[in-house]
Amino acid sequence: MQSCLVLGGGGFLGINLCHRLVAAGFRVRAFGRGCLFPAALEGVEWQRGDFSDAGSVADAIGSVDVVFHLIHNGTPQSATLDMTGDIRHNLLPSLALLEMVRTAGAPRIVFVSSGGTIYGRAERIPTPETSLANPITAYGITKLAIEKYLGLYEHLYGLDYRVLRLTNPFGPYQVPVKNQGLIAAIISRALRGESIEIWGDGKAIRDFIFVDDAIEALLLAALDQSNQRVFNIGSGQGRSVKDVIALIEHVMNQRLDIHWNAGRPIDVPRSVVTIDRARDVLRWLPKTSFEAGLERTIDWWRSFAL
Amino acid sequence: MQSCLVLGGGGFLGINLCHRLVAAGFRVRAFGRGCLFPAALEGVEWQRGDFSDAGSVADAIGSVDVVFHLIHNGTPQSATLDMTGDIRHNLLPSLALLEMVRTAGAPRIVFVSSGGTIYGRAERIPTPETSLANPITAYGITKLAIEKYLGLYEHLYGLDYRVLRLTNPFGPYQVPVKNQGLIAAIISRALRGESIEIWGDGKAIRDFIFVDDAIEALLLAALDQSNQRVFNIGSGQGRSVKDVIALIEHVMNQRLDIHWNAGRPIDVPRSVVTIDRARDVLRWLPKTSFEAGLERTIDWWRSFAL
Repeated sequence: MQSCLVLGGGGFLGINLCHRLVAAGFRVRAFGRGCLFPAALEGVEWQRGDFSDAGSVADAIGSVDVVFHLIHNGTPQSATLDMTGDIRHNLLPSLALLEMVRTAGAPRIVFVSSGGTIYGRAERIPTPETSLANPITAYGITKLAIEKYLGLYEHLYGLDYRVLRLTNPFGPYQVPVKNQGLIAAIISRALRGESIEIWGDGKAIRDFIFVDDAIEALLLAALDQSNQRVFNIGSGQGRSVKDVIALIEHVMNQRLDIHWNAGRPIDVPRSVVTIDRARDVLRWLPKTSFEAGLERTIDWWRSFAL
Repeated sequence: MQSCLVLGGGGFLGINLCHRLVAAGFRVRAFGRGCLFPAALEGVEWQRGDFSDAGSVADAIGSVDVVFHLIHNGTPQSATLDMTGDIRHNLLPSLALLEMVRTAGAPRIVFVSSGGTIYGRAERIPTPETSLANPITAYGITKLAIEKYLGLYEHLYGLDYRVLRLTNPFGPYQVPVKNQGLIAAIISRALRGESIEIWGDGKAIRDFIFVDDAIEALLLAALDQSNQRVFNIGSGQGRSVKDVIALIEHVMNQRLDIHWNAGRPIDVPRSVVTIDRARDVLRWLPKTSFEAGLERTIDWWRSFAL
């Protein structure tokens, strides 16, 4: 891998990934609608564009070796409110991307899927990659469909790809937009002394992964030569929303003002994945404890907000 | 169930289903782009329309109790050549259908999915419903996505649905269009004394089900009150293309002129499903032997063609 393109390079994961790729000495191009932290993309060739604009995407691909596909326009909630829009803005452009990649010297695609939404009402917790996908959001269905088209393109045209089913990443550069990113939402509101809206009773279990560890998995997936295609990437540990709040209160040494709202049907009660495959095949393991990740995230917010 | 709508009522399965429903005393409306055998739809209210035209579909739904969704524009091959078109003409209108059904007094939907294409490179033969879907055609991916949206609509809005994953149905009113329907293609060409094009070496294994048996399963699915949602419907028996040809030669007492072409990547080597769930839950079993089904199909072609 010499050069790579990060689709969605201006977002939370994208910025962190670009950082890491530049540090590792790769030529990095980032593509997206915008970036809240342009200074964070130093050393990166930025190309502004819309994912639905096939011409811009094709320009961005050029002759890179690896395409990281991190774009999903909208959230699990917004996708479910406008399923047709979700298909038009995510599924169709992703399919167009596959066709471009096929005709562009066939770089590898690393696609960031969703460990948090693809399994839905999971048969087993923690959930292995071999479980049936029963998404309860349109977001999860679109991610699943893109995974299946990747498999089809490999079958028909030899497309080279890896899928990472990422759970709930958190860390620096995650800002709460449209109710996404529980930890970012809590910290940012706490720092401003604002109250925090939570959906559900706090007993929902999630699998949080510190962003640096997730990014390491993306790099390993870009280089992987195994026969596996789909990898869960998470901590492998479940943690309740209540526990997360308590820990943030502890680290920030501050009592949080939580407003509890009724649960939403798009939120699964429990979401935790197994990470044995990534450990065995990618030789990947998360290195950052949840507490250490929280501290680094809070430090970032303090340095950035003050 | 008093009244029902058959989307795709002018096609092979649709005509057979309408017949059966009328015989059972139901009020039947059929919707589709056209019907090659209008006389076969006696007693059925025919509404001509395009599935992509939401207004026509909504009109057709009216206040029926059950909607049978049998429409798929295109074939596994054509869908794979134009994946975007397949999404536009099948996935998006199916999603629009779910939204219409939700706001139309919520009739049950019985969706005909594809046992032949949804599993793709199946983990197990015969394949149970619990197997992972790894389609090797865009057709199979779209069917899978529609199944997932049905599940999502049940989760969010209580939509009432059943999915039948049908293998390779054959019988009267199946005419070979765009290389679909192996048995219909062979018989019709044999009757005209034409040569027959076959893709692959004849060793491909398929699960053929006589149409009357498939239709019986559709009726039972419309009435089912179990907790199951997805049912394989096939014979449960594998049969090679070569065996099928030999049997047709035997029944027609005629030597066939076969042109063997190279295999296509969209054809799986083996496709056979388990039918235990339909047997146990729907109390359904195929009643027509393959040989008897062939004879009835050949009789139909002879009466129709001569």
